[in-house]
Amino acid sequence: MLWRGALPSKSELAILRQEIASLRALPDEAMHVLMAAAKTPPIDALRMACATLSLDLPNPDGISPADDLQAAKRLTARFPTIVAAHARIAVGKPPIAPRADLTHAANFLYMVHGKEPDPVAARAIDTYWVTVIDHGMNASTFAARVIASTRSDMVSAVTGAIGALKGPLHGGAPGPVLEMLKEIKSADRAESWVRNELQAGRRIMGFGHRVYKVRDPRADVLSKAVAAMNTAALEDRKLFDLARSVEQTVLKVLDEVKPGRNLRTNVEFYTALVLQAVGLEPRSFVATFACGRVAGWCAHVIEQHAEDHLIRPQSEYIGPRDLKAPA
Amino acid sequence: MLWRGALPSKSELAILRQEIASLRALPDEAMHVLMAAAKTPPIDALRMACATLSLDLPNPDGISPADDLQAAKRLTARFPTIVAAHARIAVGKPPIAPRADLTHAANFLYMVHGKEPDPVAARAIDTYWVTVIDHGMNASTFAARVIASTRSDMVSAVTGAIGALKGPLHGGAPGPVLEMLKEIKSADRAESWVRNELQAGRRIMGFGHRVYKVRDPRADVLSKAVAAMNTAALEDRKLFDLARSVEQTVLKVLDEVKPGRNLRTNVEFYTALVLQAVGLEPRSFVATFACGRVAGWCAHVIEQHAEDHLIRPQSEYIGPRDLKAPA
Repeated sequence: MLWRGALPSKSELAILRQEIASLRALPDEAMHVLMAAAKTPPIDALRMACATLSLDLPNPDGISPADDLQAAKRLTARFPTIVAAHARIAVGKPPIAPRADLTHAANFLYMVHGKEPDPVAARAIDTYWVTVIDHGMNASTFAARVIASTRSDMVSAVTGAIGALKGPLHGGAPGPVLEMLKEIKSADRAESWVRNELQAGRRIMGFGHRVYKVRDPRADVLSKAVAAMNTAALEDRKLFDLARSVEQTVLKVLDEVKPGRNLRTNVEFYTALVLQAVGLEPRSFVATFACGRVAGWCAHVIEQHAEDHLIRPQSEYIGPRDLKAPA
Repeated sequence: MLWRGALPSKSELAILRQEIASLRALPDEAMHVLMAAAKTPPIDALRMACATLSLDLPNPDGISPADDLQAAKRLTARFPTIVAAHARIAVGKPPIAPRADLTHAANFLYMVHGKEPDPVAARAIDTYWVTVIDHGMNASTFAARVIASTRSDMVSAVTGAIGALKGPLHGGAPGPVLEMLKEIKSADRAESWVRNELQAGRRIMGFGHRVYKVRDPRADVLSKAVAAMNTAALEDRKLFDLARSVEQTVLKVLDEVKPGRNLRTNVEFYTALVLQAVGLEPRSFVATFACGRVAGWCAHVIEQHAEDHLIRPQSEYIGPRDLKAPA
């Protein structure tokens, strides 16, 4: 639907699924880059591998709807393979080849852990990816559109978007939420911890959003996905209970200390719990976010190519007028 | 001056030159990517290799002035090595290792051709790179700034900028100018050719600019650089004479056919002649442009990191409100 503006029929959906499943394996060069990037942050490894994904495109300069669709399928198919392979390579384990008979989300967890996942865990990742698949004109999407607006290609645009997603101001990086929960430790310590953080002028991770002034609707969906994982380890259930309690406390304190600001739970808060519960390491969280968002980036590039309008702002020079060379 | 807003002293300049010269050699992975990308457009190969240039940075997530400077030196030092190596790999020749005892421009031509260049040719490339080093808020620079605005790093931002530069709407891609001159063949055919193109609704390559409504000042500088190459082959001199004649004809016809539009000679027109005269293939022109512009991109990233302000526009949904699934 994102890529063409209309939902597919059941048979169209089946064909698309099969096609994407058949494109999951990484070309040699992408795998080589990941091996060289074993010690590198996962989002950097994804940028490097993504940059090479034009190598097996028949027309790497193409920006026609057919060219874009071909690239979009490859990128969407391969991002989970890249992230899973790098997560294993980073800890000295061999990467696991994708399987075409598993769903997109189940195959990802299979490639990370080396065994077929609990269907509830796979469903949680699927829910997460759908939840974050697009979110309007955020910085990474905008970067992709600026790049595509020059009539540059899909792989170039998405590689740029990964770079923007990396930055901590972008959002979608829920690692710090887990650190916060671990620091709080138990529900009764939440209130004093939050008051202390706010007094020190620090932001509370997982709350507040540039656009939303209500509870981020995505937080609801993800909260339910975590709640459904009743097969998860006791450790995770405890963390989930703590999170729900901390959420209530933080909202109460924020309303009191920052009245009128409407700082509400954002998507990062429960994302952290979903990704933790399916056994991912916090260092892979941003790259895992990209596995969902990539389909949205591709949709924006398709739209930008159809609009065919260069995004090129003017700037105003405000610096000094006379620069002199030192003696 | 671009990187810190003040000209260096003579000794500072000498140190910077030496430092950049010492960083020219490519890390193994960048070279591996180029080998894999032998059949790929040079600008794509540059994007792939650039994406890996964080691998030997001590702090690939760093955005402090010191981190940025370290990355800027590496990128600026290595872009010519990448472009020269790929130009050779693409035609089945082995890449040539950089030399630290040559200037930035002379070393580039040395790595392309395998012999020390005519000093006038090296000076022409130097002039070209200085001429295009920065040009305000063009699409590639803006892409770099959007990416850096999330507090993402220099390598991520510059990799995105390469993607934007690739697009034919960006400009800086003077290949078509040469094709035009070759099609016109002789000065007496210019007027009828130009009138015919305009009648068919096509743009004349090398004329007109989004910002400049006068002759692009960079065209003057580059025209002189080509004129100085009196050691160039007779073929090139003929092309230069043809170009000067075609320029006058095109300006005359444009003023007559599109009065008030002020379409003037842009930077691409004489760039094509400079790059052709120093023996570069048109397919490498855009990537060679990037070798100059990279220093400007780095300067913008340094400035954006200092400003620390997220670039994230809002968008307005104008599509249909009710999407229904097909039966």
